[in-house]
Amino acid sequence: MRKIDPVKHEQKRQEIIRAALCCFVRHGFHGASTTDICVAAKISPGHLYHYFPSKDAIIEALVQENLAHAASRFEAILASPNVIDALLIEIENASIHRPEAQVLSTEALAEACRNPAFAHIVHEHARAMRALLVDFLTKAQRRGDVDSGLDPGATANILFVIIDGARALPIRNPTVDIKQTTEHLRTMLARFLKPSVSRTPPAAGAKRRACGPLSLLKKR
Amino acid sequence: MRKIDPVKHEQKRQEIIRAALCCFVRHGFHGASTTDICVAAKISPGHLYHYFPSKDAIIEALVQENLAHAASRFEAILASPNVIDALLIEIENASIHRPEAQVLSTEALAEACRNPAFAHIVHEHARAMRALLVDFLTKAQRRGDVDSGLDPGATANILFVIIDGARALPIRNPTVDIKQTTEHLRTMLARFLKPSVSRTPPAAGAKRRACGPLSLLKKR
Repeated sequence: MRKIDPVKHEQKRQEIIRAALCCFVRHGFHGASTTDICVAAKISPGHLYHYFPSKDAIIEALVQENLAHAASRFEAILASPNVIDALLIEIENASIHRPEAQVLSTEALAEACRNPAFAHIVHEHARAMRALLVDFLTKAQRRGDVDSGLDPGATANILFVIIDGARALPIRNPTVDIKQTTEHLRTMLARFLKPSVSRTPPAAGAKRRACGPLSLLKKR
Repeated sequence: MRKIDPVKHEQKRQEIIRAALCCFVRHGFHGASTTDICVAAKISPGHLYHYFPSKDAIIEALVQENLAHAASRFEAILASPNVIDALLIEIENASIHRPEAQVLSTEALAEACRNPAFAHIVHEHARAMRALLVDFLTKAQRRGDVDSGLDPGATANILFVIIDGARALPIRNPTVDIKQTTEHLRTMLARFLKPSVSRTPPAAGAKRRACGPLSLLKKR
């Protein structure tokens, strides 16, 4: 039996995942065939099966990679001095500044509406991502960075709403004013998430941020 | 030439639009054929062309109907005693409580990613809907119901984000706690949109609502 070089194997695996990603963006999850993926990755179908037994296995690898990336990003956000600002930048990078994610996310949602097996993948991904968000929000609440009156599970759902909606926006309006819209998105999320002096009077000696980042609003 | 009864003609036209809607939900805008629509509407292809020259003409009629409905809803919201609460109920009814709209919206976005002619329809619809939202927000700002520091155009974009995101949420998570999530959605939008005592000190004698609707948050 041929000896497998683990470094080269992982490198090729990553190449196939990247090639598949391009195919899914171009043809959709249903439309992209393993033949398309083999052509894009410059390998034979026989060679592909050394790495992935099926297209579904490639999609599963993409999901796991996405979750691992998200987990490391949440750690980085919690380590930053301003958790809310770091979260907002991350949300913008995952949505409004990533055309590839806009198409993939839309394709995944549409495919989930039609195909129960694909819907299961989408549900499992959302469940795992939601657990990461809930863990992140609970930690941020304990540190006093997020309003402790908010339920972490429901707030995680709201962040899903924002990310999916922000991914749809440039599809609906390709000439959208990205700068002004992201400034308003930041204002909304800051007003929602930050503990506010006006809502919850701080305990004696406790330091709290004000609610409205007025600098982000239009000049009057 | 046969004389056309305008009432019966409009009734049949509406039946065809409703039948087409069911087909688009089931098969997508691309997948649904005029044959599917004729079967669902119980008419012959020849008969269909008395009402609509093409599938695109049916889609255009759907778009125009949707815009007319939205315009009448914005008028009703502006006539209600609490504009923000009425807007939030409308957003919930257009998204989180309408499975049909969730599938149609997702299908429209996915089709817009693949088909430039369809993308044009989506862009024109968004442009007209955005104009309605901007008009509504400007009027609500003049009445003191919406924070005058927000740009109406950018705020309209944010409302698009919320509606599209809220439509995607039950697709990602079919067991989502709708009640708790809509409560948090209301809290976020109220904190974002309402003029706040803490952000903008009211003029002498002016009556303003407080920023945080604490009753909507979880009991501590």
